Amino acid sequence: MRVPPQLTTLLKEERSFFIATHINPEGDALGSSIALSMALDAMGKETVLYDKDPVPEVYRFLPGRERFVMSPEALQDGQRVCLLLDCNEPVRAGLDTAAIQRSAVIDHHETEKGFGDVRWIEPRAAATGMMVYYLLRELGSDITEEMAINLYTALAVDTGTFRYNNTTADVLRVAAELIELGAHPSEVAENLYETWSRNRFRLLTHVLDTLEIHDDVAMTTVTGEMFERTNTTADDTEHFSEFPRMIADIRIAALFRQTGDGWKVSLRSRGETNVAQVALEFGGGGHRNAAGYKVKTDIKNAKELLLRAVRRLSSS
Amino acid sequence: MRVPPQLTTLLKEERSFFIATHINPEGDALGSSIALSMALDAMGKETVLYDKDPVPEVYRFLPGRERFVMSPEALQDGQRVCLLLDCNEPVRAGLDTAAIQRSAVIDHHETEKGFGDVRWIEPRAAATGMMVYYLLRELGSDITEEMAINLYTALAVDTGTFRYNNTTADVLRVAAELIELGAHPSEVAENLYETWSRNRFRLLTHVLDTLEIHDDVAMTTVTGEMFERTNTTADDTEHFSEFPRMIADIRIAALFRQTGDGWKVSLRSRGETNVAQVALEFGGGGHRNAAGYKVKTDIKNAKELLLRAVRRLSSS
Repeated sequence: MRVPPQLTTLLKEERSFFIATHINPEGDALGSSIALSMALDAMGKETVLYDKDPVPEVYRFLPGRERFVMSPEALQDGQRVCLLLDCNEPVRAGLDTAAIQRSAVIDHHETEKGFGDVRWIEPRAAATGMMVYYLLRELGSDITEEMAINLYTALAVDTGTFRYNNTTADVLRVAAELIELGAHPSEVAENLYETWSRNRFRLLTHVLDTLEIHDDVAMTTVTGEMFERTNTTADDTEHFSEFPRMIADIRIAALFRQTGDGWKVSLRSRGETNVAQVALEFGGGGHRNAAGYKVKTDIKNAKELLLRAVRRLSSS
Repeated sequence: MRVPPQLTTLLKEERSFFIATHINPEGDALGSSIALSMALDAMGKETVLYDKDPVPEVYRFLPGRERFVMSPEALQDGQRVCLLLDCNEPVRAGLDTAAIQRSAVIDHHETEKGFGDVRWIEPRAAATGMMVYYLLRELGSDITEEMAINLYTALAVDTGTFRYNNTTADVLRVAAELIELGAHPSEVAENLYETWSRNRFRLLTHVLDTLEIHDDVAMTTVTGEMFERTNTTADDTEHFSEFPRMIADIRIAALFRQTGDGWKVSLRSRGETNVAQVALEFGGGGHRNAAGYKVKTDIKNAKELLLRAVRRLSSS
C-alpha cells in the first residue's frame, strides 16, 4: 500500500486538524480515527476528533474514545484541515461541505465522489485501520500500545476477526505487529463479542425463534413487543442478522425490525449474491453482502415482497 | 520454537510411519496429522494415518481427510514408528501401548506422562499445527496448498479463529504464510462455522430458550426430547456451550445434555476461573477453561450440585 506523498506532506506541514468519521461509527471508523489523532498529537499537532454520534457502548473499551466531540464547531473558523476517515464525503459524517476549507480523505470504500483536496482511497484495503497503520509508519510515528489496540480493533471488526474474505496475509502480518506493540487479541474479542447484556441475549433467543426459511432466504423478525418484553432497543439487534448465516446453503439472511410505521430490513448474503441490488428495489442501499431498506406494510407482505425481489434477482 | 534434532533425524532416517491422533478428533488433531502425513509421503516415506473415530462431518472439507483409516492393524507388525500427534499417550488415541515398538510424540498439551522415545511437547504452542509447521520448515518440506489449508484450519480451530488468548504474533505470522501458500481464511471460516443443518439451528434456538443464570453461571439444557423433536443428535451440540459466553459477566457457561441415565455437563469459563477443578469433583476433567463431567440425577439436582461446586471453588 503506497501512501500518497501529498498526504504525508499535508500532515507534516499543517498544524491543526479536524478528524471526522462517519455517523453510526463502528470499530474501524473509531479505531482508525482515534489512532490517527493520537499520532498527530504526538507530532505536536492540535487535533479535534469528531463524530456526530456517540461512541456505541460496545466500543467504550477503546483507549482515547473520550477524545470524541459531537459538535462540528471547531471546523467553523476555517483554520483546520478536515481529515475524513472511513468515508469520503462530508455528508456521511454529518458535516456541511461549506464549512470545510481544506481536506483530505482516507478511506477504503469505493466511491465515485470527488471530495477532498488530497484523496487516498484504497478499496482493496480490508480496513481504514490498515491504511492508518501504513500512514503512521510512513510518518515515522511511534505506535503506542493505545494506538495498537485501536488499530487492532479496526482490523478485527472489518474482517470479522479474520474470517471474511478481505483477510489477507498482509492483514495478519499487521495484526501480528500490533500484538507486539501491545494489543491483546482475546481482550479485544471479549470486548467485541462477549459483553452482551442478559436482556440482549434474551432478545436474540426470541428473534431466532421466529426463523423462517424460503428459497434459501432465512428470515427473522423483531417486533416492538419483543423490545418491550426484554427491555431492549434497536441498538441491541446489531449482528442479529448474521446468525442465520451459520446455516448451510443460506444465500440471504434477512432481519425484519419493526419501526414506527413499518419494517427496517437488514440483508446479509454470501459470495456473489448481491443484496444491494435487492435493497435498491425498495429505495435502500448498501454493499454486495450487506444492505438494507425500509418498507411500510405488514410483516406477511414485507416477507412476500422480499422473496419476490430475490426471485427476480436470481432470474436476472 | 525449536524442533528437537532427534525428531528430524528420526523422520529422515526411518521409512515407515503410523501417524495417530486422539479420539473425537477436531481441527488441530486432523489438520496437523494430515499435513504431516502429506509431507512424509512427499519425502518418499510410507505412512498410515489413523484415527479411532471417523472424521466429523464439519471437517470433511479438509483435503486429504480420506487418508484416515480407523483400524490400528498397520501397527501390529512392529515395523512402523508411531507418531502421536496432539496427544501424548496411546490411550488418548485408542491405541494399545504394547503394539508400539518405537514412537515420537508431537503435542502442545501439558503432560506428566513419559510416553515416547522422542518427545516434543510445547504447552505454549497455540496448536499442534504450529509445531508441525515449524517441523516441516525444519525438514525443508514444500508446504503445498493442501497442507496449508490443513495447518491453517488447525490454527483457526485451536485459537477460536484468533480470538483466544493463545493468539500470539507468531500465530498470525504463520497464518499469514499459510494464506500465501494457498489457505483461504473465509473458506475455512465458512466451512467451520457456516455449515449448520437447519435442524441443528432449530435445536440451538430450543437450547438457548432454556437459559438460566445464577451466580454468574449460565446454564442451558438439551434433552432427549429436543433431539427427537429436531431430528438431531449429540454431535449437533458442538459449540453450543460457548454461546452464553457472549453475555457480559458470565464466569461459567454450562451445557447439560441428557444421556441414557443422567447428564453430560460441558463447562466453559473465562480467564482464571478453573472449571477443570469443578469437573474433577464429579470425576470428570479437562482444561482450565473447558472441562466436562457426567452426573446421574435429575436436572434440577444436577444444576444445584454444579452451583454448589462453583461456590466452593469461589471460596477456596
